[in-house]
Amino acid sequence: MTVTLSFDEAHTLVARILEINGCSPRNATVIATTVIAAERDGAGSHGLFRMPGYVATLKSGWLDGKAVPKVRDAGPGLVAVDANNGFAQVALADGRDLVTTKARTQGIAAIAIRNSHHFAALWVDVEPFADQGLVAMAFGNARHRVVPFGGRKKLFGTNPMAFACPRRNGPPMVWDQASSMMAHGEIQLAARHGYTLPEGAGYDAAGNPTRDPKGVLDGGAQGPFGGHKGSAIALMVELMGAALTGGDFGFEDRSGPFVGAQSSNAGEFIVLIDPARTGGDRFLDRTEELFRRLVSDNGARLPGDRRYANRARSLAQRLSIEKSVHDGLLALLEEKA
Amino acid sequence: MTVTLSFDEAHTLVARILEINGCSPRNATVIATTVIAAERDGAGSHGLFRMPGYVATLKSGWLDGKAVPKVRDAGPGLVAVDANNGFAQVALADGRDLVTTKARTQGIAAIAIRNSHHFAALWVDVEPFADQGLVAMAFGNARHRVVPFGGRKKLFGTNPMAFACPRRNGPPMVWDQASSMMAHGEIQLAARHGYTLPEGAGYDAAGNPTRDPKGVLDGGAQGPFGGHKGSAIALMVELMGAALTGGDFGFEDRSGPFVGAQSSNAGEFIVLIDPARTGGDRFLDRTEELFRRLVSDNGARLPGDRRYANRARSLAQRLSIEKSVHDGLLALLEEKA
Repeated sequence: MTVTLSFDEAHTLVARILEINGCSPRNATVIATTVIAAERDGAGSHGLFRMPGYVATLKSGWLDGKAVPKVRDAGPGLVAVDANNGFAQVALADGRDLVTTKARTQGIAAIAIRNSHHFAALWVDVEPFADQGLVAMAFGNARHRVVPFGGRKKLFGTNPMAFACPRRNGPPMVWDQASSMMAHGEIQLAARHGYTLPEGAGYDAAGNPTRDPKGVLDGGAQGPFGGHKGSAIALMVELMGAALTGGDFGFEDRSGPFVGAQSSNAGEFIVLIDPARTGGDRFLDRTEELFRRLVSDNGARLPGDRRYANRARSLAQRLSIEKSVHDGLLALLEEKA
Repeated sequence: MTVTLSFDEAHTLVARILEINGCSPRNATVIATTVIAAERDGAGSHGLFRMPGYVATLKSGWLDGKAVPKVRDAGPGLVAVDANNGFAQVALADGRDLVTTKARTQGIAAIAIRNSHHFAALWVDVEPFADQGLVAMAFGNARHRVVPFGGRKKLFGTNPMAFACPRRNGPPMVWDQASSMMAHGEIQLAARHGYTLPEGAGYDAAGNPTRDPKGVLDGGAQGPFGGHKGSAIALMVELMGAALTGGDFGFEDRSGPFVGAQSSNAGEFIVLIDPARTGGDRFLDRTEELFRRLVSDNGARLPGDRRYANRARSLAQRLSIEKSVHDGLLALLEEKA
């Protein structure tokens, strides 16, 4: 049995849940927008599915749902935002106009967000910049879960990186990928279904490689994608996300005492480049030719296209939610922070 | 039997070979420095081993060894250099001071090099910036050799990316890695020794996956590292290296008619960030703690450390070269462009 809602209704419901559980109205609206965007794009693991995690984290007292970020002009090309122990997306929303203006006037600019929590996908953060014609690159570190290549102990977060490139017609080309071989949710699913993990995906609690998902979940850790090369990417994201912003490294995670907390107090770094300044007038035509060869000539998939196809389908209809999921959301309205 | 030379003598010999075969004295010196740096660091494939390739490419008429780059101030945070069909390293040398000053004053800056040839490793390009306290990221595209994940035809270059992070004491942490699963030279070695390639490393001329290195070398292509994630990195490097600079994409390679040419006329993009502006005073201490955990706690290897160990050994002694290699170098002195 399913319940159907308009996207506006779903947004209102999500924002209301966040507000009842400790967010300011403004912060609730910003986060609800990212949750609904994920649901709309078929990125279910970052959609409504994640609401109990948001609520548990808010109720744990670990993050401040009412935080007001502090934006600092850190140089002609830099914006630094202290999220004040709140959501990274709110900090980004507050610094967005300033860093966009800087990218246009300087040719390249960056925003460094620290003291921030990020539960959502990174593509949501970079797509709007590319919609405005800028190339964007985002690096977000997270709670330590990944063993470096050649190591035995978890050190890095699953550390996503995202890249967005504007296109002449239609939405930008955007990819967003964790530095771990598998998402944590995929390992949970493998455990539930009794699947074996691919080689390199997991480590048990003793630091030995394992292909048993239960061993990973039971105090173990994950492996990076692509061996030593993916591990180098994870290290870069850790440095860009935490060291360059002043946010906590994954191994500095302080959420332990806060029961139910699902985020780390970390950082996010986003670089913006104006392609018209360096790539010339033909930038958009040339990239279109590269994408055409990738898709039409090669039969490969352009990163992000599956999400856009889901988005087009979603926007042509109302949002359809399993009744059990909807009941779960309504229950979250009852719980007080 | 070996011949020993001081590093200065080896530099003079390499520069002389380049000059005799068509480089201006200045350009010969710049390229000789990168060749000797690779030899010094035990990165043999980019060292003296590559000299016949430099000479063949110079003699083919495909690149201009006497090119004088044209540096343009493309914005408060941007430097754009037209290498004028010469070596990328010469273009970088000419734009280096301007982009370094911009990074210091703006907090972030970039240099976009186009119409350029790059035979060498990227770590040589970024290490000096990190030596001066800047975080550096480089993207260089190359002649198409790599099939996108899910595709059948070569589209991307082996597309290296490099990352450099300054350290408080000693040389920076630098990694430099191709987006292909294997280096082209490794596939040649596998063919010679009759090894089988790992799954995903190669495609035959018909576009079918193959583990036979001879199939790859005989009109085939290579696969990206790390499946779809490495393929996304290769796509990003193609866009950063070529589209953002105005350099040729890998698939636009025009070297065909120039017999012996081993480079493509491509592009390189380098981003520089001043960590003191965003990461604060503790940046160097915090990164040191991350590196300590990676190496001492974890038993993993810090990227670049093997090269630095080789460098320390090399600098404690003279350069020792197989007599056959030295004879080969002397023979290159005889050939006229």
